[in-house]
Amino acid sequence: MNSTRINGDRLWDSIMEMGRHGALPNGGCRRLALTEEDKMGRDLFVRWAKEAGCTVSVDEVGNIYARRNGQDPDLPAVATGSHLDTQPHGGRFDGIYGVLAGLEVVRAMNDNNVRTQKPVDVIVWTNEEAARFSPPLTGSQVFAGKLETEDVHRTLTSDGAMVKDELVDIGYHGSEIPGSRKLDSFIEAHIEQGPVLEKEAKTIGVVDCVQGAFAAEVTLAGEDGHAGTVQLDMRRDACLGAAEMIVFLNRLATDTDDLVKMTVGTLKINPNSISTIPGQAYFTIDCRHPDRAILGSLRARVKSGLAEIAAERGLGFEFRIMLEKQPVGFDPNIASIIERATKNLAYPYRRMLSGAAHDAMNIAELAPTAMIFIPCKNGISHNEAESASPSDVAAGANVLLHAMIELAGVV
Amino acid sequence: MNSTRINGDRLWDSIMEMGRHGALPNGGCRRLALTEEDKMGRDLFVRWAKEAGCTVSVDEVGNIYARRNGQDPDLPAVATGSHLDTQPHGGRFDGIYGVLAGLEVVRAMNDNNVRTQKPVDVIVWTNEEAARFSPPLTGSQVFAGKLETEDVHRTLTSDGAMVKDELVDIGYHGSEIPGSRKLDSFIEAHIEQGPVLEKEAKTIGVVDCVQGAFAAEVTLAGEDGHAGTVQLDMRRDACLGAAEMIVFLNRLATDTDDLVKMTVGTLKINPNSISTIPGQAYFTIDCRHPDRAILGSLRARVKSGLAEIAAERGLGFEFRIMLEKQPVGFDPNIASIIERATKNLAYPYRRMLSGAAHDAMNIAELAPTAMIFIPCKNGISHNEAESASPSDVAAGANVLLHAMIELAGVV
Repeated sequence: MNSTRINGDRLWDSIMEMGRHGALPNGGCRRLALTEEDKMGRDLFVRWAKEAGCTVSVDEVGNIYARRNGQDPDLPAVATGSHLDTQPHGGRFDGIYGVLAGLEVVRAMNDNNVRTQKPVDVIVWTNEEAARFSPPLTGSQVFAGKLETEDVHRTLTSDGAMVKDELVDIGYHGSEIPGSRKLDSFIEAHIEQGPVLEKEAKTIGVVDCVQGAFAAEVTLAGEDGHAGTVQLDMRRDACLGAAEMIVFLNRLATDTDDLVKMTVGTLKINPNSISTIPGQAYFTIDCRHPDRAILGSLRARVKSGLAEIAAERGLGFEFRIMLEKQPVGFDPNIASIIERATKNLAYPYRRMLSGAAHDAMNIAELAPTAMIFIPCKNGISHNEAESASPSDVAAGANVLLHAMIELAGVV
Repeated sequence: MNSTRINGDRLWDSIMEMGRHGALPNGGCRRLALTEEDKMGRDLFVRWAKEAGCTVSVDEVGNIYARRNGQDPDLPAVATGSHLDTQPHGGRFDGIYGVLAGLEVVRAMNDNNVRTQKPVDVIVWTNEEAARFSPPLTGSQVFAGKLETEDVHRTLTSDGAMVKDELVDIGYHGSEIPGSRKLDSFIEAHIEQGPVLEKEAKTIGVVDCVQGAFAAEVTLAGEDGHAGTVQLDMRRDACLGAAEMIVFLNRLATDTDDLVKMTVGTLKINPNSISTIPGQAYFTIDCRHPDRAILGSLRARVKSGLAEIAAERGLGFEFRIMLEKQPVGFDPNIASIIERATKNLAYPYRRMLSGAAHDAMNIAELAPTAMIFIPCKNGISHNEAESASPSDVAAGANVLLHAMIELAGVV
C-alpha cells in the first residue's frame, strides 16, 4: 500500500470546480450555509460521492455522510471531512479542502482497488462558519450532543429565515438522527490559516491539539485635560495606561512560553483630540494557549497585572471576560499515525496546534481524532486571497489516504 | 499706595454682566469674534471705559485701546488687556478676565485718586480664539507686525463673511494703524487653564514664559493577521508598536525634566477587530517645553526613538511634523515687579510658565511683558464649566493694580 497515491490533478480540479458555486470576482467564494450556493455545492459533492460508489445519507441538521463500505459493514467508520460553507468573502480552500481531500481518498482507493476492513465516511458538516447563523460548528456540535436539533431548527438566519425551512428548501433536511452513527476515528484535513508551515517550509502540520482561548474587554477611566497645561505627574492619562497595559501583556506572553498568542485587536481612546489628554480608553484582549492550566493562570495574571497598572495611573478599571474556550487535546495515537504516514511519504512536517476552532474539536469528544494541516499562502484565510499550492494540496491528501488506510485496515 | 485695592465685587459683577452677551444654558458663553454678540460685549466695555474717564480708540483690525491719561501724555503707556471673544462653548473668564481686570485697575485708580506719570492702556485684542476665523491671536499678531492688516481684512470667516465687512458691520473698523501706539510694558492677567495653582493652593502664578511646542503624526504599517494562528515572533503588530512608542515617549519626557509635557491625544488602529492582529496604527504627539534647545533635542530624540522601535517591530514608519512653535521668554523685570506686588499683598504664589498661547506672546516682541495667572476650577477651560473664585479674581486684579502702579509711576 505504500506506493498508493491520490490523484493531485483530479483533487485540484475538483476544488476549482467547487469554487464556481458562489464564486467572487477576485477568486474567492461566498457560499453561506443553507443558501442556493450551498445547495449547489452540496449537490456537486453528493453527485461525485455517488459516482465514486458511495452511499449518501443526510441527517436532520443537514450533515452529509458519504460511505465507502468496508468488508465488515457493521464496524464503525474511519471518517474524515470538514465543511463546504464559507465566509461572506471567503476562499476556495477553508473547509472545502477537507471535504474534497476525503472524496479524493475514496476515489484513490477505488483506482487502486483498496479494500478496507472498516467502512470509510466522508462527512460534510453544516454551518461551520456561522456567517449566516450562529453558533459556529453547528453540524458537528449537534453530532456531538452539544446542541439540540430542535434548537438549531428554530434558529433564525441573519436574513430572517428559519433554519429548518432552509434545510427543507435546499433538500438537505435528512432523516438520520445526528450522532446515531458511530465513528471509529476522525481526521480533518485543513489549510493552516496561519503562517507557520509556510515560514518554516514544512508541507504537513500534524495537529495534536486545538488551543483554548479567552477574550476580555478593558475599560479605563481617567481625566481629560489640556495637553499644554497639565503636568505629567498630575495626569490620569487613559491612553498612556492602555499603552503600558499592552506592553505588559506582550511581556507576560513572551515570558510565559512560545505558545501563547496575545493580541490587542481593538483599541479606542476618547476624546481623541490632539491637544487633549485622553480621559477614556477601551481595548480588547484575545489570549490563546493549548494548555488549560497555563491559560487559567494567564487569565488571572492578565487581570491582576492590568489592575495594578490602572491603580498606579489612577485610572478606573473594568475587566470583563467576553468568551472562554478550553483547549482540546487530540488523540495521541491518531496523531502518531498521521506522523508516521507523513514520514513514510517523506514530506517535511512539524507537530503543531490549531489556532482556530474546527469541527474536529467536537468529534474528538466521541472518537479518536486529529488533524492534518497544509500551508496556505501568507497565512491568509477568510479572505478571497486565500490560496494553497497544488503540490501541498496533494501532499495533505496523500497523508490522509495513508493514515485512513492504516486505520481502516486493508483486507 | 500699598493699601490701595481694587473693588472685588464690582469686578465680579462686571464679569457676570459681560457673560450675558452670548450666554449659554450651562453658564458658559458663545461670543465668536466680530459677531453681534461680540459687538455687544465690545460696546459694553467701551461704555464702561468711557464712564471711567478713558479715551477709546479702535484700530484697523478692531483692537480697542482705552486710555487713562498720565501726567505725561507723550510717554508710552503701561498696558494691560486680553480678549473678549470666546470658543463656541467657552466660559466667562478666559480672556474676559484680563480685559475687565484692566478696567477695574482704572476704576480703582480713579476711586483712590491715583495719578500716574505714564498713561495706562486697557486693550481688547481681536479674535484671540480663532473659533470663527484663523489665525488665533489675530489682533496682537497684527499689532506686532506678524500679520498684515490687508490679509486679515480679506480673510473669510467659517460662515462665509469677509473680516473687513464684519468689522465695518459691528462698528469696529477703526482708523488707528495697528502697532503705531508705543507701549512702555504689557501685563496680561488670565485664568491658568490648567490645574497647577489649584492643586498647589496658590492664588497667583507669576508667568515668566510661554512654552514652545511641536506636534507630530506617526503612521505605522505592519501586517494584519489571525490572532489565533500567528505566533508572536512572526507578527508585525502595529498596535503593540504604537503602545511601545507611547511608553517610550512618556519615559523620555519624565527622564528629561518635570517641565516636559508629552501627550498622545489621538490614536487609531486598523482593522480594529478583536481577533485580528492590527496591521495599521496612527497617533499624534503633542510635546511642549519652555526651553528652545531642550525642545529641539526632544524632537530629534522622539523621532529617532520611535524609528528604532518601528525597526525592531518590522513596522513601516512615517513621522510628520504638523506644527512647531518656539518658546517665548517674558521680561524678567516685569516678572519681578509682578512677584514683588504679589509678595507685598501676601498671596501664595509660584513662578510658572504658560502652557497655552496668549496675546502677551506677541506683545513681548515689542515691549517688556509678563503675565499673571489665577486658578481656575479643576483646570478646566474652553468649556462652559470654566470657573474661577471671586477671591482669586480679586487677588489677580490687585496684583495687576500694584504692578501697573509701580510701572506707571505715581505722581
